[in-house]
Amino acid sequence: MTKIALVGCGLVGGSWALVFARAGFDVTLYDPSPASLDAALDFARSSSSTLAELDLLNGQSPSEVISRLKPVRNLAEAVHHADYIQESAPERLAIKQALYKELAPLAKMDAVIASSTSALPASSFTAEMEGRERCLVVHPINPPHLIPLVEIIPAPWTAPTVVERTDALMKQVGQVPIRLNREIAGFVANRLQSAILSEAFRLVEDGICSANDVDTAVADGLGLRWFFMGPFETMDLNAQGVADYCAKFGSTYYGLAKEQADPREWSGPLIATVEKQRREKTPAGNLDARKAWRDRCLAVLLKAKSDVLRGNA
Amino acid sequence: MTKIALVGCGLVGGSWALVFARAGFDVTLYDPSPASLDAALDFARSSSSTLAELDLLNGQSPSEVISRLKPVRNLAEAVHHADYIQESAPERLAIKQALYKELAPLAKMDAVIASSTSALPASSFTAEMEGRERCLVVHPINPPHLIPLVEIIPAPWTAPTVVERTDALMKQVGQVPIRLNREIAGFVANRLQSAILSEAFRLVEDGICSANDVDTAVADGLGLRWFFMGPFETMDLNAQGVADYCAKFGSTYYGLAKEQADPREWSGPLIATVEKQRREKTPAGNLDARKAWRDRCLAVLLKAKSDVLRGNA
Repeated sequence: MTKIALVGCGLVGGSWALVFARAGFDVTLYDPSPASLDAALDFARSSSSTLAELDLLNGQSPSEVISRLKPVRNLAEAVHHADYIQESAPERLAIKQALYKELAPLAKMDAVIASSTSALPASSFTAEMEGRERCLVVHPINPPHLIPLVEIIPAPWTAPTVVERTDALMKQVGQVPIRLNREIAGFVANRLQSAILSEAFRLVEDGICSANDVDTAVADGLGLRWFFMGPFETMDLNAQGVADYCAKFGSTYYGLAKEQADPREWSGPLIATVEKQRREKTPAGNLDARKAWRDRCLAVLLKAKSDVLRGNA
Repeated sequence: MTKIALVGCGLVGGSWALVFARAGFDVTLYDPSPASLDAALDFARSSSSTLAELDLLNGQSPSEVISRLKPVRNLAEAVHHADYIQESAPERLAIKQALYKELAPLAKMDAVIASSTSALPASSFTAEMEGRERCLVVHPINPPHLIPLVEIIPAPWTAPTVVERTDALMKQVGQVPIRLNREIAGFVANRLQSAILSEAFRLVEDGICSANDVDTAVADGLGLRWFFMGPFETMDLNAQGVADYCAKFGSTYYGLAKEQADPREWSGPLIATVEKQRREKTPAGNLDARKAWRDRCLAVLLKAKSDVLRGNA
């Protein structure tokens, strides 16, 4: 049985813990801060209760799932037996570089060492490392125990078998992996998010509509289809296929793309405008409650999605 | 009671018919093609059955709803008593210009005349029209009986009361309107869609990942949050507010925006690549069935969303 180690246990680590434990794997957890480790375990405990309540633990009890988590006191103990190591350390290059040098002799030579980084390509912190062919990026969308997408991005020197084994493991634990053919800034998900955020800020800055209106355009409009279909399938079904759609609307979209080709820094006043509109909707003191609300909505709606996609609704 | 007229009844008109009739309004329908009119009524009939089955007709029977639809043989008969006219004629400027000239003396001077156009600003086809202050764009996302967003876009000469009355009517029938402060190419929704499609095609063209991987990144990742939160709220909850998020990631996104500022025409070979990947997932002969599947998923998931947002799940 594949043994899992989690290195760096903030909120991302706590959610990863649940992903692996829910799927039946034994997981060791290590973080240099005991307080972070405790918080990650607390997060896993409370989230597993919510999942159980919604029948999203495949019939397991929360305590059964949580019993598979083993917090440990040092890095060596966490990783020396591990077959798959998911690293979720802070997003600072120097920290990751030092950590991977430390990991190199501690991890098994046939282990997979995957980073949760959203911003740093694996090549930037594994170049100097012994056995760097074990390493790659496995980027989750927060929180991974609710959002199944993971982006698998190999460094130029990542062994192909490492990519294959990672892909298979992710599917085994119920995540939905995509594979990037090479490293690129922002990977895929954050590049798509960047595209929409650029236009969102542009519309507000240019006085076309409010930030809340942009949110409505997505949450009551475009986003309803994107919950279960990507942009290409959406386009495909809005005509008789992609080619038909492009024949009809391609030149219109090219016109829009040219208008949208003015990259802008989000200015202080613009950010303040959006922040103010958001705080009117969710006061600062309610942010944490709203995050819990978001995660509950996600869990309930994913259950409904799973039912409808299986033909049970 | 507000009387509704639908002018131009393709699929969009058929879905609009359901929106108004479901809310209890009497609706006259006119299309120059009797076959189109029949198809719109058939669409409304079959869709109302699906809605009833999913308990989305507020306890009304499909026949009760459909009984409010009255197809008529000429434009004058359709509109002369109408308080609100939703026009969904073909997206060709000359057709709309001629139609609005014809409508001008037939419609009441205090009627609202709203166009479903997704591409033409109202100023482009109402400039020469008598009583042009009655006109504006009310752009739905297809199909409006399932997707509540409507974009309200006044022409420079649209009377403010026309905008107000339209906004109120849309809320009354259960749609969710946003108001644009002025005309802009693509309005809001298609500009956001353009942004994401530009990047989607760029990723495929540059060999980063497959079209199916892009779809997965949305349907199993980003899109899960966008089903009930817009991009600004998503950002807000991924940090301690928008300002905090921008302080942490603003410069990263500016870097991505600069990379994404190369507008590209979607080339024939690129379109063929995406079309081929789509046809492997959904063969051409299955497209219509897949569209019906999409609408059924939408209806079921919107019911689940409505339940969770009301605290019933």
